[in-house]
Amino acid sequence: MTGTTLDDYTDRYAQRVRGMTASEIRALFAVASRPEVVSLAGGAPYISALPLDAVGEVLGQLAAEHGATTLQYGIGQGTQELRERICEVMALSGIDASCGASPEDVVVTVGGQQALDLIARLFLDPGDVVLAEGPTYVGALGVFQAAEARVTHVPMDADGLIPEALEEAIAETARSGRRAKFLYTIPTYQNPAGVTLSEERRERVLDICERAGLLVVEDDPYGQLGFDGEPPAPLRSRRRDGVFYLSTFSKTFAPGLRVGWILAPHAVRDKLVIANEAQVLCPSPYAQAAVTAYLTTMPWRQQLKVYREVYRERRDAMLAALTDLMPEGTTWTTPGGGLFVWANLPEGLDAKAMVPRAIAARVAYVPGIGFYADGSGVANMRLNFSFPPPDRIREGVRRLAGVMEQEIAMRRVFGATVGGGPVAATGVDPRDPRTRLA
Amino acid sequence: MTGTTLDDYTDRYAQRVRGMTASEIRALFAVASRPEVVSLAGGAPYISALPLDAVGEVLGQLAAEHGATTLQYGIGQGTQELRERICEVMALSGIDASCGASPEDVVVTVGGQQALDLIARLFLDPGDVVLAEGPTYVGALGVFQAAEARVTHVPMDADGLIPEALEEAIAETARSGRRAKFLYTIPTYQNPAGVTLSEERRERVLDICERAGLLVVEDDPYGQLGFDGEPPAPLRSRRRDGVFYLSTFSKTFAPGLRVGWILAPHAVRDKLVIANEAQVLCPSPYAQAAVTAYLTTMPWRQQLKVYREVYRERRDAMLAALTDLMPEGTTWTTPGGGLFVWANLPEGLDAKAMVPRAIAARVAYVPGIGFYADGSGVANMRLNFSFPPPDRIREGVRRLAGVMEQEIAMRRVFGATVGGGPVAATGVDPRDPRTRLA
Repeated sequence: MTGTTLDDYTDRYAQRVRGMTASEIRALFAVASRPEVVSLAGGAPYISALPLDAVGEVLGQLAAEHGATTLQYGIGQGTQELRERICEVMALSGIDASCGASPEDVVVTVGGQQALDLIARLFLDPGDVVLAEGPTYVGALGVFQAAEARVTHVPMDADGLIPEALEEAIAETARSGRRAKFLYTIPTYQNPAGVTLSEERRERVLDICERAGLLVVEDDPYGQLGFDGEPPAPLRSRRRDGVFYLSTFSKTFAPGLRVGWILAPHAVRDKLVIANEAQVLCPSPYAQAAVTAYLTTMPWRQQLKVYREVYRERRDAMLAALTDLMPEGTTWTTPGGGLFVWANLPEGLDAKAMVPRAIAARVAYVPGIGFYADGSGVANMRLNFSFPPPDRIREGVRRLAGVMEQEIAMRRVFGATVGGGPVAATGVDPRDPRTRLA
Repeated sequence: MTGTTLDDYTDRYAQRVRGMTASEIRALFAVASRPEVVSLAGGAPYISALPLDAVGEVLGQLAAEHGATTLQYGIGQGTQELRERICEVMALSGIDASCGASPEDVVVTVGGQQALDLIARLFLDPGDVVLAEGPTYVGALGVFQAAEARVTHVPMDADGLIPEALEEAIAETARSGRRAKFLYTIPTYQNPAGVTLSEERRERVLDICERAGLLVVEDDPYGQLGFDGEPPAPLRSRRRDGVFYLSTFSKTFAPGLRVGWILAPHAVRDKLVIANEAQVLCPSPYAQAAVTAYLTTMPWRQQLKVYREVYRERRDAMLAALTDLMPEGTTWTTPGGGLFVWANLPEGLDAKAMVPRAIAARVAYVPGIGFYADGSGVANMRLNFSFPPPDRIREGVRRLAGVMEQEIAMRRVFGATVGGGPVAATGVDPRDPRTRLA
């Protein structure tokens, strides 16, 4: 058996990944993790804000005193105890018994990523269409690509997904003879855009999907990380049916345990459990017990406040640095929560082409093209503010601004060809009105 | 969105699962876990044989002292440290640098189950054929079913997979105009049959696969749990190419952490990593650190000996009880390691139909039909000896023998219809020579 034959079998994975090859993405993150580089590229929570000694004590006890169950096999749906605690967590956001939420319909997963993958496995066949915000979570694009589905992006503005654009995307999909299987949306503190779907638009989006018979997959990893008061209630709290609600403890506790969940419509709960068993047999009983213990014995609501405070300070540092330092013509979003700012570069700049120069200047970010399935996002970048402390954020933005100033100066001298390659190659104009997010 | 539409989307999961519905399997395990029932149904290691206090101390320290990395996101391939330790573990079985094994080609997974699922995702398209021992691991059948692949079983005898039968299955698949994508095999202490592919057959099986251009997926969860000396070396130790080697820490350390791995041919390593990232982003860094610490700081080779001793005693107890108590006409395998005995019931008995009577007599097992994709195994059952202590094993076999005696007596009185339904329904004769495993 030769490598060629293996390649032949697995060609679907050999495609270029979302405008960057997998090795480019890996290389970016490898370089970004060097200590001399200010990384605005990641999406990591600031774990050091946790009381690690106390967490360690709880985790040690789970093995020492309850190892015969926590270190043993478990069931595919996840433990009853954790599913009950998850319902308490969701109730904080307004998803409670009054809208039919129940531990019976919760399926515990290996982080939010597997939640999404299970839904894709259940619903997507090759060639199916998924509607998703543009830009959207890069890991979701990976799932949809692995399922050989097509992604149609729906543009956003500062109030999130644009309802008229959603209607248009549904109609266009239907005209092409296909059917969209679901809308994938991160309505609150969106990754990567940092925007939030407004109260008024939430009902409109749900109505549009209901009329079109379109399922909604609501991904909500950041909803409890708001800095400026409470966000609008989740879509799932407004509808009993037709909405899959996905979340994770990766941002509110710790990603290293890999615990997420799906609140599923009752009719498909069993199928998700079977798919979960086929994929991983069961989510780690030890990790589930760890999250359960954290939610039962530790002041997790207080910890949420700590995370919010830390991230608010860092967001403020980033917004101030952007205002003070960015070259004219740069715009960015103002996130009310979450981990990210989405920036729009001055005319002619190409965020991906600029990466090597940024790395040389010891700053890293993710180019916007990674968050689109269609080659858009050339003029965009995602900037993370949850992990680096405020002074490093300012230093990172300063380095980035310097690189951009240099690019702009080079463009003036050498003309439009600098960094202009990918625009021509993808056929996408970064000024395209479809990219309405300023 | 109604339940009907959801059902419509997900019909492929609504099929009866391998001769038992998912709810039947769940109900069986729920009942089997009642304290008054002797469960010979599970596949759980005896976790209480671990030094849980010491394990707890190690796990606690990992969070308290290294939480900033162990509780954070990791990389899709798994940590370098764990991949190096995994190579040390494989070297014990003869898979080392001399046959090209390297940490670079190890991909860490969420248990052995996800290892298998990733391979299926990479290689299988709907309608593809997979060759697998008959009977085979029930979780593998779940993976292949989820991938909409067809399983062709290759019969075994006391020396494992029968090479001539493998050649015949390959030829028959080709005659049907299909191509088998890979051979899935558990050559050592097979689950559920308990048999081991002999030394001499290992080379023949590899030669046959090589000639046919057939990949080999070698699943080896039990290879280090031999009771009667060392088993023949793994297939992967004999060939650099064409063999995917899968294993897990579930049986040699603890399943609750969900850590397994693939040693992949170098040419597809990257694709497995991308598939892993799409599915779970990364295997739990905390669980990986836990296994790394276990392999670095604790006497794990000594612990392997402890497990072997415990399981050998329990296997002996089971074989003795079967010899002493089983009705005439019952036969069973003699496992040299692992967790299971495979039994063949006296003529006319139906293992699945007998389950409710067995549960009423407070003993549980898994009927053989669950381990075949084609309805075979009606007259078989899998008996686990790793979890219950020796006296419970004997009591369980005593109860089971009582139920079987009763069934045999009823058949004498009422004729062949008792429990005979499923045989007619599946069209499979349990005496079929294809089921050559006595």
